[in-house]
Amino acid sequence: MRSPAANAELALHLEAAAAPTPGNVDRDRDHDDLRFEHFLAGAVGARDGLSMAATDESIGAAFERAVEGMSQQSGGNTQFGALLLLIPLVRAAASDDGLTPTTARQIVEQTTVDDAAAFYRAFDHVDVRVDDPPDSFEPLDVRRGSTAIPALRERELTLQDVLAASADRDGVAREWTNGFKRSFETASRLAGSSDGGPVDGQSPVETWIVAPDRLADRAARAHLALLAEQPDSLIVTAHDESTAASVRRRARELLSGLPEQPPEKATIETFAADLVDRGVNPGMTADLLAAGLFIALETEAVSV
Amino acid sequence: MRSPAANAELALHLEAAAAPTPGNVDRDRDHDDLRFEHFLAGAVGARDGLSMAATDESIGAAFERAVEGMSQQSGGNTQFGALLLLIPLVRAAASDDGLTPTTARQIVEQTTVDDAAAFYRAFDHVDVRVDDPPDSFEPLDVRRGSTAIPALRERELTLQDVLAASADRDGVAREWTNGFKRSFETASRLAGSSDGGPVDGQSPVETWIVAPDRLADRAARAHLALLAEQPDSLIVTAHDESTAASVRRRARELLSGLPEQPPEKATIETFAADLVDRGVNPGMTADLLAAGLFIALETEAVSV
Repeated sequence: MRSPAANAELALHLEAAAAPTPGNVDRDRDHDDLRFEHFLAGAVGARDGLSMAATDESIGAAFERAVEGMSQQSGGNTQFGALLLLIPLVRAAASDDGLTPTTARQIVEQTTVDDAAAFYRAFDHVDVRVDDPPDSFEPLDVRRGSTAIPALRERELTLQDVLAASADRDGVAREWTNGFKRSFETASRLAGSSDGGPVDGQSPVETWIVAPDRLADRAARAHLALLAEQPDSLIVTAHDESTAASVRRRARELLSGLPEQPPEKATIETFAADLVDRGVNPGMTADLLAAGLFIALETEAVSV
Repeated sequence: MRSPAANAELALHLEAAAAPTPGNVDRDRDHDDLRFEHFLAGAVGARDGLSMAATDESIGAAFERAVEGMSQQSGGNTQFGALLLLIPLVRAAASDDGLTPTTARQIVEQTTVDDAAAFYRAFDHVDVRVDDPPDSFEPLDVRRGSTAIPALRERELTLQDVLAASADRDGVAREWTNGFKRSFETASRLAGSSDGGPVDGQSPVETWIVAPDRLADRAARAHLALLAEQPDSLIVTAHDESTAASVRRRARELLSGLPEQPPEKATIETFAADLVDRGVNPGMTADLLAAGLFIALETEAVSV
């Protein structure tokens, strides 16, 4: 049986390999300066940090180590957001009670100010695209990296507090506040069950997602379902809300014919090519997919 | 900087991703029952054994652990031969003197009967396609797995001895007897230098190999150069010598126009499709490529 750390690394690889995942680097598509091989190196590099997350070391230290290892490639930030989801999930998986929304919530609640400091140090290793913070949070802008740590300590903010502060505009941070709701839902979709929570009432989508044998193909379909469900917060940050809304709308259109008329792969490919041409990258959606893949692998709801 | 174990795992991923690698699963091509995602899971699963190879644990135990982890996926044997090359190379890389043909030879010379026993146990974890042994070696047929260990102990054979016995018909075993000659040559080709040894005097091939930016593309070209150089011993085992010779001949033809007329990617793709249709899988060549990628990464002759 694979360890939680191995499953987490494998989830990163499967997310990158899943194709087509419109707007993201995938098995069939590189961007100009960000290539599939950077994702391979990023996932391999993150492994030691993921292994730390399964020990008694602090969550923050494990995250910083994972990000540091992930960043040892020339493509830039490949998996920062995915690691922010995977680290607490790996910790929960390694706990006596195993991986559930409840244990994942407990891991979040136990985070400390030191964890938050390590989270800020992680930004020293790689450029991450994030939104401007609210004015009151400006001294704690994550883009300040470790220089923000004194302000953090003064306010005695834990990592849970820091992420809660951006939950309204960052889909990854939001997972930290709600028991990793969409991550668990994605795992259920990949498994063809809704045991992990409600799945938007769209059973035709579920049936379509689990039809292929290849897990990477299921993952690509789950990616499209995620895109259709909510606007991608990284697109909002990098572009604007209307761009994110239009991407979501197009994804919904592609799925609107289910179950009778599943989207043609060529049609999804056209959507994918269009997003790449416009430089639109739904990175948050990819992060949620990686987390969903991890949960599905770890709970043996899917296998490779 | 990535650890030797991380570089070894990354080499496995890059080998699998390199495309086109005619006859092998690659980023663009799955076989019916053996898919790219099995190679992802195989590489991730091998990591703990690769990490063991960088410690004081025995080489044999590290190899067995790597194979056991690799086999935790439903595709069957994905990377047995590659791991047989990588384990001693990782050990050499972790030594005080670093990775050179000399240190790699020393690791081989230090192997014990216990290492050989662990090597036999590794065959219990996965079906590996191997040739019939010579008559005198029949009680030591690797396909007997751990049941051959008593005969092994009686003859007091080390892992070096066992591999030397099949070096004439197995290209991976041969690497163990000659200082990993083709593995180091492949690393030199990937780096565009011939520092690691002679490279068949074909400098146009070298120039062609290092032309692309993507390391995975260089790796695919190095794969074709390996195919052109010697018959693949796994093809001999699975088919016959004339099939292996014909594959080599076709690879030579594809490279014969260099430097003026590099092979068209479409022409290589046609060759690749033909091999898949005929079920011809140059697995030894893939193993050598993985070893070459590891050496090139570990010596910082290439980067991702």
